[in-house]
Amino acid sequence: MKPSRSFASDNNAGVHPEIMAAIGAANDGHVIAYGDDPYTARAVKLFRQHLGRDVEVFFAFGGTGANVLGLKAATQSHQAIICAATAHINVDECGAPEKFTGCKLLDVPTPDGKLRVAQLKPLLHEVGFEHHVQPRVISVSQATEMGTVYTPSELKALASFAQENNLLLHVDGARIANAAASLKVKLKAITRDAGVDILSFGGAKNGMMYGEAVVFFDASLARDFKYTRKQGAQLPSKMRFISAQFAALLDNELWHRNALHANDMAQRLARELAKLPQLTITQRVESNGVFAIVPKRYIPLLQQKYFFYVWNEETSEARFMTSFDTTADDIASFVALVKRIVK
Amino acid sequence: MKPSRSFASDNNAGVHPEIMAAIGAANDGHVIAYGDDPYTARAVKLFRQHLGRDVEVFFAFGGTGANVLGLKAATQSHQAIICAATAHINVDECGAPEKFTGCKLLDVPTPDGKLRVAQLKPLLHEVGFEHHVQPRVISVSQATEMGTVYTPSELKALASFAQENNLLLHVDGARIANAAASLKVKLKAITRDAGVDILSFGGAKNGMMYGEAVVFFDASLARDFKYTRKQGAQLPSKMRFISAQFAALLDNELWHRNALHANDMAQRLARELAKLPQLTITQRVESNGVFAIVPKRYIPLLQQKYFFYVWNEETSEARFMTSFDTTADDIASFVALVKRIVK
Amino acid sequence: MKPSRSFASDNNAGVHPEIMAAIGAANDGHVIAYGDDPYTARAVKLFRQHLGRDVEVFFAFGGTGANVLGLKAATQSHQAIICAATAHINVDECGAPEKFTGCKLLDVPTPDGKLRVAQLKPLLHEVGFEHHVQPRVISVSQATEMGTVYTPSELKALASFAQENNLLLHVDGARIANAAASLKVKLKAITRDAGVDILSFGGAKNGMMYGEAVVFFDASLARDFKYTRKQGAQLPSKMRFISAQFAALLDNELWHRNALHANDMAQRLARELAKLPQLTITQRVESNGVFAIVPKRYIPLLQQKYFFYVWNEETSEARFMTSFDTTADDIASFVALVKRIVK
Amino acid sequence: MKPSRSFASDNNAGVHPEIMAAIGAANDGHVIAYGDDPYTARAVKLFRQHLGRDVEVFFAFGGTGANVLGLKAATQSHQAIICAATAHINVDECGAPEKFTGCKLLDVPTPDGKLRVAQLKPLLHEVGFEHHVQPRVISVSQATEMGTVYTPSELKALASFAQENNLLLHVDGARIANAAASLKVKLKAITRDAGVDILSFGGAKNGMMYGEAVVFFDASLARDFKYTRKQGAQLPSKMRFISAQFAALLDNELWHRNALHANDMAQRLARELAKLPQLTITQRVESNGVFAIVPKRYIPLLQQKYFFYVWNEETSEARFMTSFDTTADDIASFVALVKRIVK
Repeated sequence: MKPSRSFASDNNAGVHPEIMAAIGAANDGHVIAYGDDPYTARAVKLFRQHLGRDVEVFFAFGGTGANVLGLKAATQSHQAIICAATAHINVDECGAPEKFTGCKLLDVPTPDGKLRVAQLKPLLHEVGFEHHVQPRVISVSQATEMGTVYTPSELKALASFAQENNLLLHVDGARIANAAASLKVKLKAITRDAGVDILSFGGAKNGMMYGEAVVFFDASLARDFKYTRKQGAQLPSKMRFISAQFAALLDNELWHRNALHANDMAQRLARELAKLPQLTITQRVESNGVFAIVPKRYIPLLQQKYFFYVWNEETSEARFMTSFDTTADDIASFVALVKRIVK
Repeated sequence: MKPSRSFASDNNAGVHPEIMAAIGAANDGHVIAYGDDPYTARAVKLFRQHLGRDVEVFFAFGGTGANVLGLKAATQSHQAIICAATAHINVDECGAPEKFTGCKLLDVPTPDGKLRVAQLKPLLHEVGFEHHVQPRVISVSQATEMGTVYTPSELKALASFAQENNLLLHVDGARIANAAASLKVKLKAITRDAGVDILSFGGAKNGMMYGEAVVFFDASLARDFKYTRKQGAQLPSKMRFISAQFAALLDNELWHRNALHANDMAQRLARELAKLPQLTITQRVESNGVFAIVPKRYIPLLQQKYFFYVWNEETSEARFMTSFDTTADDIASFVALVKRIVK
Repeated sequence: MKPSRSFASDNNAGVHPEIMAAIGAANDGHVIAYGDDPYTARAVKLFRQHLGRDVEVFFAFGGTGANVLGLKAATQSHQAIICAATAHINVDECGAPEKFTGCKLLDVPTPDGKLRVAQLKPLLHEVGFEHHVQPRVISVSQATEMGTVYTPSELKALASFAQENNLLLHVDGARIANAAASLKVKLKAITRDAGVDILSFGGAKNGMMYGEAVVFFDASLARDFKYTRKQGAQLPSKMRFISAQFAALLDNELWHRNALHANDMAQRLARELAKLPQLTITQRVESNGVFAIVPKRYIPLLQQKYFFYVWNEETSEARFMTSFDTTADDIASFVALVKRIVK
Repeated sequence: MKPSRSFASDNNAGVHPEIMAAIGAANDGHVIAYGDDPYTARAVKLFRQHLGRDVEVFFAFGGTGANVLGLKAATQSHQAIICAATAHINVDECGAPEKFTGCKLLDVPTPDGKLRVAQLKPLLHEVGFEHHVQPRVISVSQATEMGTVYTPSELKALASFAQENNLLLHVDGARIANAAASLKVKLKAITRDAGVDILSFGGAKNGMMYGEAVVFFDASLARDFKYTRKQGAQLPSKMRFISAQFAALLDNELWHRNALHANDMAQRLARELAKLPQLTITQRVESNGVFAIVPKRYIPLLQQKYFFYVWNEETSEARFMTSFDTTADDIASFVALVKRIVK
């Protein structure tokens, strides 16, 4: 029998009980649809407490939606979006950013999923030349798809470069909570205080059922956003059920508890796997993902019992994700299995 | 104090308790994300029981999403989508169909929201002429935005015309359940058996929290749809929570009970309002909406207590929607208020 | 044998000899491609003499291109473009405006191809409502597709309305020269002085081989236009050959001579046809087109000798276009044939 | 004084006299617009003589237009177009392919602008996975932007790979004539006979004023293309003037004479530059471009007299293009200047 929890993805987990309770509590009579309701007002207020009094916040159905809407708000179709080659927007959204914004993505290879300023400079050589797309946005994932995390000072360096070059800094924060928990900082330290312009704030990977927020730190970028969201088919009618989830997540530090727990479980898993000479951890474990080269012959044996993805077929690198509901027992059982198999 | 339920829209209602229970029951351990899970398999199976063994079913976040995805699957950008001028896709989706499909909408004025074959013929005069967009889809709303309903034979007439002219018949079924309940027919009678090609099957307006289905009656149209859905940012990661809702809706006739109740409440409301000489009912009440001309001076007085929308400012026509949770008491209290005010 | 000139369209004519000579003269050695050449500098200078010292001018390949680029420069995809139902952008560009801008076109029925302010007001009822596209541009054709012409004061009324409502006034000037010649005014009087914001200035229908100009009367709208033009595949590499044509057209009043002649020929044709009781002229003849109801049985007989289009199959209304090279003999021969046939 | 011809680009040249004569000859009376004319019929016939009796041929205004239209005909928006990182469609069309097709471009680094089959295989790892764009087209430039040329067998290898993997082979043939002349083969040998599916056939870089052809070797791909062309704003009204140019180019081997001459001039230039130890030729000279590293200090001195572009700022690599009108004297004068400067 398969265990009830695996390591395939943090979106294989269900919904945190506190969030489920908040959903239930919001199911009370009629409220106006599309966000003009008290649940949404409260959630927005909580976002402002965490991220800054003047941020503009809009909820959307999902992560791809939040990313493409935020990028659309920042771009004209002849512009370009710079991102790491491994970015979710570059490889895992089936071309949604190109389709919805019309922009080209300029993807930069990195060893660890993190963009550096030095890599960006050559992309600005042809600014003003009409034959070339014009860079407008730097988009980073925080935490990255490789489980690594940008420090506040790394983000500030990107933001400064952006500002100097008339670019905007966009953060795909599907795992922003994991990043903040890992860095032991508040959410504001890696967003507003670091110079971020637009943020996709993830809910589903941190214990919500569905729902993502697009946060603008410069209100002028949000001027037409309500139309962009509706035209992008990301305006939920029964908005209160997303808002109630976000309120539960941001209140009472649930966002932090969930993320910290998932991160801790990843640390624990990495520590154990690192002891096995047959496996090689390939990335720093800074959030809730562990990347490791697992000899090819072991993989099907492990996958008989646990879901997880092979990240790189060529190198036989596997990805193991933990989530808010991963238990120490889950790690122990899985590690025990790995040990049995690799021996 | 405002009453807890109003008549603004069926999406101002919350979630039906049976659906809420199904969501809770689905929150059990890990399952694979994006639809490869047993909840989704079961929901698809139920759809096939209702609509035909060979239909292809895909779940999406919302109604606008379901519409634009289904239309994209059926069109090339140089083609046109024929619809009533009042169609949701024409007026209430902020241009999402044009943006996502690239197509022009050819909108046809109607007295009651319903397209007739005779209106469509002139639109085919220029087929083959490269300067003109080429009609490809007839899109109807069932029930319509005016609360009216296409009979099976009206749909069949449109489907025959479509087939003869190499067009497809698309149904925006945000209120398909209300239509079926009104007609006292099975869902199949107004979809598969009537010759419909593509259906947006609505959940949120009939007691679900969120979630809409795109149903293809011709599987060849669905061949690339999984990519279209992902690129359209409508692929939910924790799919099981939509699937569980649909399963609850389709099982045990909940879809029918909810719709029938909402329809009955609309009938009751219309009967009462029709008795008042100051008001004029403007549309046949065939689903869960009542349209009535309410003299302008009464409207703010009514809106102090009840949410509802003025549909047409010029004629002072108001729209009153009922939903699965509208009670006979709600109707009675509202009607009592109307009577007090108009006297 | 068919005569060498017909009445099908002004783009069935060839190239005026002065323009052909200018093309030949520009074929001299190398110049930098894409517009950084002396021919283009001279043409832009001439445009500024005619339309205002501070206009921004960009050349494009064709009329549809010029229209969609100009509209793209003025809009975001959630906005709407208001136009007459007969507008070229609405019916004769195969959906290019929708595809390239993402916008919806709000088309207004008119008896004569001309928009009036009173028709526009109801379209602004829902400004600010996120479910509806937001009107941003009023686009008029000058001369219209029905051969009629907006007077300067009619344009000013539209421009004032536009300004009051945060809209822009776009002119599809495929036949702007015919309109100015008809009104006996300078080009500036029906563009800059009338409050026009963006103009497609037509070349091909007035004696050029190819080439159209997009003129911005507010330079801020043109800021990113060079990229829009390139991304829209409308940046000619050997630009000088368009520029030389425009210089020939604008210099020495050729634009006016050609347009005036075409208009005069249309007047002559209309006068003669009006004498025949079997035919009914349906539109005022204010530019180079004549619309007339011609009994159905005569049409094939006429088309054996002359190309022309039936504009409206239902009413048997035909369109006869004259061009810079139409001769008085052409009119006389055609009228003689009509007389022979209708007797 | 600057010489009248430079080495900046083959589109800095004017129009070949035989083509200019053909344009003049086509300026005779009226013909139907948009391609239903005898000039177009003749040009299409000539294309079929060169490329195959059953090819479908459509003329467009320009090269970017031809590329994006051809790619649109072959793709759905969730698909991907594989190309060399240096491809014109990837770097020099301001994102037009992404904007018009909605597709992502998957760009592959190459040393010489040429794709190899081995590079393509890893891009097919995720076929069928809905989160990833789905490769559909391999697009190659022939000759490449680096002046190199695919041999017929190299093209066949790509075509076989394409066929085996349900991909199409697209050729950006802005310089297809130079490639054929270089390989000493007929046009058919590197298109139809090599398994090409779609070809942009260039005119402007080989002596035409404007005009490009999109050629389909599989007619089923062209089924809706007339609409795509119109919606793409690439349908010339006075088509005959493009058609007459293509007829002149394809008749009497002008295409070959022009290309061969340009290639010969490039060879001559490369031979001379190769003798100078201060310069390094960086690419094989297989068409009409010469790439050479020129020490940075010499470049402004050369550019005082001759236009040319620095291809790579970092390596100080310059690009010198020859054209149909480059003379042996032009080469000699330029080389003499280079010698004076580098000494």
